[in-house]
Amino acid sequence: METKSGLRRPALDPATVAPRTTSGYPTDAMRAVTKGRAKQPLGDALGLTTFGVNLTRLEPGAASSLRHWHLRQDEFVWVLEGHVTLVTDEGEQMLGPGTCAGFPGGTPNGHHLVNRTAEPAVFLEVGDRLPGDGADYPDHDLQVRLTPAGWRYRHRDGTPYD
Amino acid sequence: METKSGLRRPALDPATVAPRTTSGYPTDAMRAVTKGRAKQPLGDALGLTTFGVNLTRLEPGAASSLRHWHLRQDEFVWVLEGHVTLVTDEGEQMLGPGTCAGFPGGTPNGHHLVNRTAEPAVFLEVGDRLPGDGADYPDHDLQVRLTPAGWRYRHRDGTPYD
Repeated sequence: METKSGLRRPALDPATVAPRTTSGYPTDAMRAVTKGRAKQPLGDALGLTTFGVNLTRLEPGAASSLRHWHLRQDEFVWVLEGHVTLVTDEGEQMLGPGTCAGFPGGTPNGHHLVNRTAEPAVFLEVGDRLPGDGADYPDHDLQVRLTPAGWRYRHRDGTPYD
Repeated sequence: METKSGLRRPALDPATVAPRTTSGYPTDAMRAVTKGRAKQPLGDALGLTTFGVNLTRLEPGAASSLRHWHLRQDEFVWVLEGHVTLVTDEGEQMLGPGTCAGFPGGTPNGHHLVNRTAEPAVFLEVGDRLPGDGADYPDHDLQVRLTPAGWRYRHRDGTPYD
């Protein structure tokens, strides 16, 4: 595939990958947390299947997700531009360009990144795609599980969201 | 873990991760190709196990590896600084900061990155760690297989290197 910058597969100009700005969270209040988030699925565009790589941009005020931890999936983030606040059970840290973070699957320490600055922030995020994954959300009445029918959001007691 | 920049797990200052400059290739001529390569294993430092993430630096003249393709492992690279030449069966492309490439496992198209500039180049590289992996090297009498005893290099006919 020829791109504007002249790169062709297996190389990729990220500018040619359409961003996704939607959220699958089941309530308006939950979806509002990621308003201003745009994810470009670079790994999918390159034909990768065993892990995902997104180039994610957070406008001021936006968060990467609700605070969560994965049952199995290892996650990695690398900050490219701007500054994000990493929130975990231990508190907050500011991450700038050239710093990173990693979240081994099965570690029950909810995390997310929030852009509390006045400038956009951009980072790479990587996560594996092992079967049997899911995530818990310590600050919300929410869990998600990977089912044969895809990702399904539920209340903490296991009942589905309508 | 407290670091010089004040970041603590699950965040990481890459400057605190010791680089590896050695190569496991079985001959001096093969090892010479990666002279000037330094890899900082960020994923390992963060406790990730299902994929690896290295921050890799190539001095002028150094290559990321011998040209190879993996039987199963998906690979991804993101260029952070400098310029590298991506070599595949289809020829060469120059990749600069903010561009990337991906190599789905099982695609028999040998690839590597070579720094043909006068400045260092730095990139992130990600690869999964599925069982049953191996790699073939189209330009050399070499293959590598992941065995119960670890990675083992062989001649193309399967006989081991001494």
